[in-house]
Amino acid sequence: MTLAARDTLRNADVIVGYKTYLDLIEEFLPGKEIISSQMMKEVDRCRQALDSAESGKTVALVCGGDPGIYAMAGLVYEMVKEKEYGCKVEIIPGLAAINSCAARLGAPLMHDFAAISLSDLLTPWEVIEKRLQAAAMADFVTAIYNPKSKKRTEQIGQARNIFLQHRSPETPVGIVTAATRENEKIAVTTLEKMLENDIGMQSTLIIGNSQTFSWNDLIITPRGYTGKYNL
Amino acid sequence: MTLAARDTLRNADVIVGYKTYLDLIEEFLPGKEIISSQMMKEVDRCRQALDSAESGKTVALVCGGDPGIYAMAGLVYEMVKEKEYGCKVEIIPGLAAINSCAARLGAPLMHDFAAISLSDLLTPWEVIEKRLQAAAMADFVTAIYNPKSKKRTEQIGQARNIFLQHRSPETPVGIVTAATRENEKIAVTTLEKMLENDIGMQSTLIIGNSQTFSWNDLIITPRGYTGKYNL
Repeated sequence: MTLAARDTLRNADVIVGYKTYLDLIEEFLPGKEIISSQMMKEVDRCRQALDSAESGKTVALVCGGDPGIYAMAGLVYEMVKEKEYGCKVEIIPGLAAINSCAARLGAPLMHDFAAISLSDLLTPWEVIEKRLQAAAMADFVTAIYNPKSKKRTEQIGQARNIFLQHRSPETPVGIVTAATRENEKIAVTTLEKMLENDIGMQSTLIIGNSQTFSWNDLIITPRGYTGKYNL
Repeated sequence: MTLAARDTLRNADVIVGYKTYLDLIEEFLPGKEIISSQMMKEVDRCRQALDSAESGKTVALVCGGDPGIYAMAGLVYEMVKEKEYGCKVEIIPGLAAINSCAARLGAPLMHDFAAISLSDLLTPWEVIEKRLQAAAMADFVTAIYNPKSKKRTEQIGQARNIFLQHRSPETPVGIVTAATRENEKIAVTTLEKMLENDIGMQSTLIIGNSQTFSWNDLIITPRGYTGKYNL
């Protein structure tokens, strides 16, 4: 958590969030109006936060990771625009899965990278497949978000096959599940063996580029291709 | 700054960093051993930090952004491996330019994205060009790092031309210079007009995907392509 996020929570009249996330920040909750729910949908939470802000209150809408990366910032702005809310919105950036997973895995993101979500709920699979092809072909280090869910289990295998068309089976792959949480789990494996590991809804994968190497259970991508720096 | 970074600075015996960054954290410096320099190279700073840690001290090596994204984490691990340092290394993730620029620009990173550095110091231009092509073709939102330096001024125009082959001239582009610093500057423009803006060494660009729209000087990328959510 950033100092700015902490101050925002401290100064809020109302804190809105999914129960699982509110449990992680319970020290900030006493004395606040709390809007929480196990089941409520993102769109509803967002509307409740904006309604409350519109009434003059200072509202903190909490989400996991960075609100600006695959998270709530877009929904908030889309709703403000669509429903013509007049309240002021500020996005407090945070650590996204790419930031915290990279730190746990060593230094995989030292060179150009792509982030691709395998969820085809709002995106046609053809678009996702095209991106996997592009990222694999152009040697991007690639972070895979939403690799698997209970209902959606095939895509991660398809993603792996696409990468195997362009990269060595020995390419290092890091799998971080529940980064920075109590049940955090880290695995360093290879493109060939990655499917032998537990991959779930809370997992993020980082697939190395052609230069990435593994060392002491870490994944390291050199800064360049031309070896111009002497250690 | 995260709470973890703050605690790390507080607990360090030694703080090592480029002078410009140390100036930003001067409240943490009193009572510490400081290793700072205007001119010293990254590799030297890294070696000094590791030598100091090897002697038994707790050392904080400071860099801008997130050490795990295009920054010092890789160099530290490469040197630990190469020179067989025995000290323990921990990477404290932080806000990278993508996190802070996205927050300033609205919500550009709500969908798959790529980060590409235009610096050809350690990477052949052909590799960079291939990545720009791949990112543009596969409709990634694209963050451009190191768009320009004093000596290197042509690449940003070439990058723009590649994107114009695949995306509308009206595609929103955000330019953030010196994000979160005193001299922060934000511009929201389009692929067509982006070169009319000041772009410098401290700038990061975010080019929207085919769905990204601008609204009230913000850039917003919808979460999906299929419009399945009702606001």
